[in-house]
Amino acid sequence: MSRIAFIGLGAMGAGMAANQAKVGHDVRAFDLSAAALEKAGAAGCRVASSSLEAIKDAEVVITMLPAGAQVREVWLSEVIPNAAPTALLIDCSTIEVATARSLGEAATAADLAAADAPVSGGIMGAEAGTLAFMVGCEEAIFPRVEQALAPMARVVIHAGGAGAGQAAKICNNMLLGISMAGVCEAFALAEKLGLDAQRFFDIASKSSGQCWSLTTYCPWPGPVPSAPSNHAYEGGFLTRLMLKDLKLSQQAAANSGAATPLGAHAAALYALFDGLGYGGKDFSALLQLVRGRLSELN
Amino acid sequence: MSRIAFIGLGAMGAGMAANQAKVGHDVRAFDLSAAALEKAGAAGCRVASSSLEAIKDAEVVITMLPAGAQVREVWLSEVIPNAAPTALLIDCSTIEVATARSLGEAATAADLAAADAPVSGGIMGAEAGTLAFMVGCEEAIFPRVEQALAPMARVVIHAGGAGAGQAAKICNNMLLGISMAGVCEAFALAEKLGLDAQRFFDIASKSSGQCWSLTTYCPWPGPVPSAPSNHAYEGGFLTRLMLKDLKLSQQAAANSGAATPLGAHAAALYALFDGLGYGGKDFSALLQLVRGRLSELN
Repeated sequence: MSRIAFIGLGAMGAGMAANQAKVGHDVRAFDLSAAALEKAGAAGCRVASSSLEAIKDAEVVITMLPAGAQVREVWLSEVIPNAAPTALLIDCSTIEVATARSLGEAATAADLAAADAPVSGGIMGAEAGTLAFMVGCEEAIFPRVEQALAPMARVVIHAGGAGAGQAAKICNNMLLGISMAGVCEAFALAEKLGLDAQRFFDIASKSSGQCWSLTTYCPWPGPVPSAPSNHAYEGGFLTRLMLKDLKLSQQAAANSGAATPLGAHAAALYALFDGLGYGGKDFSALLQLVRGRLSELN
Repeated sequence: MSRIAFIGLGAMGAGMAANQAKVGHDVRAFDLSAAALEKAGAAGCRVASSSLEAIKDAEVVITMLPAGAQVREVWLSEVIPNAAPTALLIDCSTIEVATARSLGEAATAADLAAADAPVSGGIMGAEAGTLAFMVGCEEAIFPRVEQALAPMARVVIHAGGAGAGQAAKICNNMLLGISMAGVCEAFALAEKLGLDAQRFFDIASKSSGQCWSLTTYCPWPGPVPSAPSNHAYEGGFLTRLMLKDLKLSQQAAANSGAATPLGAHAAALYALFDGLGYGGKDFSALLQLVRGRLSELN
């Protein structure tokens, strides 16, 4: 049983903190929203009146915040100055690689152990405790990070040093955004050419076009019953979150000098789709934009 | 044992015709190149002095030609006017969907059974008799087509009516071109961010970025030993052939009114790579363009 400070109890953080409490940890939870705090209390967390109260004497400090600006603010003003000397700091938010790296360096300069550990698996994974964590930290502290994340995880993977967790996530999700757009375009072209969608699925899923976006998460309703396309594109991985990750990938590409032409184009497509008001739909709903059938989403 | 006319004995056709002869069929082969004819003779085919001589009395007529213009010429001027009334006509070339459809209609108008059956599997598949055929033809004649292609095939899939074989091939290969470019960009970004390529491979291949281009045909040398990236990008699926298929997909998209923004961008990238002189390299060599290391290809 560890004392865990958990800061940020939004859609993802709520389920994650609850899973830490469920296995018996002493979770001291904080969020700016009173409703979120109340929910955390009902889920077995102790409600802290401030982030400082949560951080004080915690063995592990976990942050799960919307973006880099908030993580930077909380880590630099509160977590790093007030954490116990032996505390382990883990940021599970998805933020810029450069910010994650600089916060890792700031923690190291203060002699604190720290990791960036963004997740995949969505709200359902957060609630079920089946998230995948991609971790950036020094090799030596990875076992502690792995142990701390275990109650929330299906898998915890060490990607490399500070920032590597964020790098792995955006590289993977940029590829995901590109391949999903590619699958949507292939179905749209097949349709215009009079090729049956199920037959195209059967052929491509056993050929060189095979990809997770097609065979596990098929955007065309029918071939994969568990996919959000069969549930009105509700839940799943929201378009606005895919857009956030694609933007992060393009920021990282610009800062590092990487050329990502299809990544940039995919980001533009998702920005367009989000701008049309579909940010709250699963990202596979892009199919209906590409095939000119936005009416299917209303 | 059937009498088979085989027209077009290039890099692909030579191996395919040889495999028909190998199982005992009476293959009458024709090509404009004397060297190709000599090679076919040595492989057990009977050498025809003209396409008409090959077509005469053949039960199956197979064409394997570079592009739609040649197939149109040969089918309209020679095959359809001279084929036996019970002959089965199969074009295995990769050509425009619209051309394939109109040739299928021309054959039907002449009361001849016909199919479009483009392949995947490359020269090695042609030689080994392990090609995948995507077939467009009437349901009723598919069993005959399947039987006729069997000596050259690992799998024969019925995609739909006339032109559907071509449609399935270009939709799949457009998706392949997009996903390969996406994988190349993801590796290039990972490299610039200091993320180890093998770790990125390990993470993405078990995550939502998984795709055939990554896990079976990895463009980064190392993770997948059998991939062309480990053999100086020689052999495999040539850049110029991927470019041909991407151009066909964009022609089909333009003609049918389909929107394929990433498909168009992928076509432009491969055109650029081909224009730099790398058309004879495997298409996964695009990685070295994206990461700014063309010197790796010299």
